[in-house]
Amino acid sequence: MMSAQSTPRKGSASGDDQTQMLVRKIPDGSVIDHIASGKALSVLRLLGDPEQNGITIAMVMNVSSSKMGKKDIVKVEGMELSPEQIQRLALIAPRASVNIVRSYKVVAKRNAVPPRILRGILSCTAPTCVSVREKDSAPSIFFISGRSPLRYRCKYCGRELAEKEIISQLG
Amino acid sequence: MMSAQSTPRKGSASGDDQTQMLVRKIPDGSVIDHIASGKALSVLRLLGDPEQNGITIAMVMNVSSSKMGKKDIVKVEGMELSPEQIQRLALIAPRASVNIVRSYKVVAKRNAVPPRILRGILSCTAPTCVSVREKDSAPSIFFISGRSPLRYRCKYCGRELAEKEIISQLG
Repeated sequence: MMSAQSTPRKGSASGDDQTQMLVRKIPDGSVIDHIASGKALSVLRLLGDPEQNGITIAMVMNVSSSKMGKKDIVKVEGMELSPEQIQRLALIAPRASVNIVRSYKVVAKRNAVPPRILRGILSCTAPTCVSVREKDSAPSIFFISGRSPLRYRCKYCGRELAEKEIISQLG
Repeated sequence: MMSAQSTPRKGSASGDDQTQMLVRKIPDGSVIDHIASGKALSVLRLLGDPEQNGITIAMVMNVSSSKMGKKDIVKVEGMELSPEQIQRLALIAPRASVNIVRSYKVVAKRNAVPPRILRGILSCTAPTCVSVREKDSAPSIFFISGRSPLRYRCKYCGRELAEKEIISQLG
């Protein structure tokens, strides 16, 4: 499969070239590929306001992918994703890959792997949970309990958060 | 200025080429250009769910424009905007232009001009307005009262809707 940052081929019309047709190379920044179709807008929210941050964003939604059927891609020109952004990305798009691009070349590849333990990122949805009632003495801790779909379980009360709840907390 | 659907030039680095760098030509569909920076996500909502509608969307946010400083562009592959979608677009992005593309060629250009009169599209925000209390006998009618920023005034009670309120009602 052609990567989202490979050189476009002319006159080609095979499956994954649809990506090439719609989004071209960026000189510097981050290419977030293999986002599940429909999740690109949640990924955008991670990046903040493009105008305020002085970044340019290109996005394609619902393009063909040999691996995933359909997928979304987000390219950010002028921003290299921070480790914290990549961690949050992993929760929204657990199969995403991040390529860091400098001078049109991929200089680093980072897979968005959902961490086994999450500290202080998610909030328990059980109103009686100690992490809700006594935030200072019992800071939020979640353990991964499923990967596809993604699920995390509260260390204190055992309440499980579904993928939808996880995304809505981060969005 | 190069249009968003013109042929990419190689090795060029002038201002508006940033657009070319990020988004390439589409074979069939609609190119919505000259969207005020930050409004692309509101435009996306007009188009519905790409997966459900079987369309592919490419979008760039915050690219340089000689006319507008910064702008957003949305390309929709596989959908020609309906007159009703273009009318709604005009309310979200009053300076937007729509190019209808078939076989890589622009076959029609439609400017998104906010209509002078809007019937049944906006809702008055004055709780005592007759169009709110008696919807059946007094259907919503608004007259344009400003173009930049966009404003519409209720025919019945004179309440004016600001651009932000107009967009939030359509989003």
